[in-house]
Amino acid sequence: MSVYDVVRTLGISLPEVVPPVAVYVPFVRSGQLLFLSGHIPKKGGTPWIGQLGTNMTTAEGALAARGVAIDLIATLHAATGDLDSITRIVKLMVLVNSSSTFTEHHRVANGASELIQQVFGAQGTHVRSAFGVAQIPFGCCLEIELIAEVR
Amino acid sequence: MSVYDVVRTLGISLPEVVPPVAVYVPFVRSGQLLFLSGHIPKKGGTPWIGQLGTNMTTAEGALAARGVAIDLIATLHAATGDLDSITRIVKLMVLVNSSSTFTEHHRVANGASELIQQVFGAQGTHVRSAFGVAQIPFGCCLEIELIAEVR
Amino acid sequence: MSVYDVVRTLGISLPEVVPPVAVYVPFVRSGQLLFLSGHIPKKGGTPWIGQLGTNMTTAEGALAARGVAIDLIATLHAATGDLDSITRIVKLMVLVNSSSTFTEHHRVANGASELIQQVFGAQGTHVRSAFGVAQIPFGCCLEIELIAEVR
Repeated sequence: MSVYDVVRTLGISLPEVVPPVAVYVPFVRSGQLLFLSGHIPKKGGTPWIGQLGTNMTTAEGALAARGVAIDLIATLHAATGDLDSITRIVKLMVLVNSSSTFTEHHRVANGASELIQQVFGAQGTHVRSAFGVAQIPFGCCLEIELIAEVR
Repeated sequence: MSVYDVVRTLGISLPEVVPPVAVYVPFVRSGQLLFLSGHIPKKGGTPWIGQLGTNMTTAEGALAARGVAIDLIATLHAATGDLDSITRIVKLMVLVNSSSTFTEHHRVANGASELIQQVFGAQGTHVRSAFGVAQIPFGCCLEIELIAEVR
Repeated sequence: MSVYDVVRTLGISLPEVVPPVAVYVPFVRSGQLLFLSGHIPKKGGTPWIGQLGTNMTTAEGALAARGVAIDLIATLHAATGDLDSITRIVKLMVLVNSSSTFTEHHRVANGASELIQQVFGAQGTHVRSAFGVAQIPFGCCLEIELIAEVR
């Protein structure tokens, strides 16, 4: 089954990739590694602002992380033209905008990790770091970067 | 001298690697690079909770970092089956759970860097980033991820 | 035009690379990837201390980031002996020492990204993550690590 079939089965439509309004790019390939910029979540088309432990629940954070994972997959599609050419999702780094007392960053990050494994299967099992940061651009609730291996 | 001889000489016994209770894996190999997930410290078998600058000293932090380095080496062994096949420790990223006034993250990180250099010798010299984060999963005092090069 | 010509045209003189006073090294090459340690900014030869949102403006932060980019380029020169052998700046990670309310990390990071693109041209377009951390070694206002691809 193609990755695109799985995406459709999950009822997900991949968004167009909007190049960042900045002096950097969404992806760079070097050898067989594909590096993706940190992606931030959106809600109704604008940055999803919030802080875990202050004004967002773990469940809401996981939903935001799932949304970022969809955008990361869209960027992987834009980068390769063929998601089936992705031989491995290597690594996620999940930054959570978090109060000094919030300690469930791993459960927030699972929102992204679970979707990526559903979509890519065995190729989707990745290493991960997840932790709480002081702030994120635009006040977003999280930011995720990804490294993939391509054929 | 084998890396295992050095480990023994230092009186270190490598723990069994417990796969994370989560939707990610402890290591992924891509080409000659081996990526390890963020590892957190343990004390008496449970997550080592604390914050530098609040309720932990730099020396305690360095000890926790040394413990994580031992776990990272155990994961490298699990990943390769032969620590002597590691041709270089490429990179450490050391996240320190730190108060707004703590500024000795580099000295905390040295607890990990020094052990890795003792164990791997010239192959153990690595690049590093160390900094203070707002929080870590489970409230742990630090988290370290590692990239190695394997034969 | 050589990268060195661009550097001269911009009126930049690359500093000598001072190895970190620590148990790690400024750069490690693995395959075609060159990993650089986190670099911190200096002002008058000492660590540039400050926090965005507390006692530094976005413009000052961008200036500090530009200074770190110059040091990173100096390290790339020390690592390769020939900046023209750099085929791509792959990735920047920009950590900003930031108050809980500062949300312009991307504009601070642009100080580094813009200089790197001026210097390396098309080879300088990179992926990036930028976010706010709780603290940085020595109390510095930011820290930047870099991955480049070399011939």
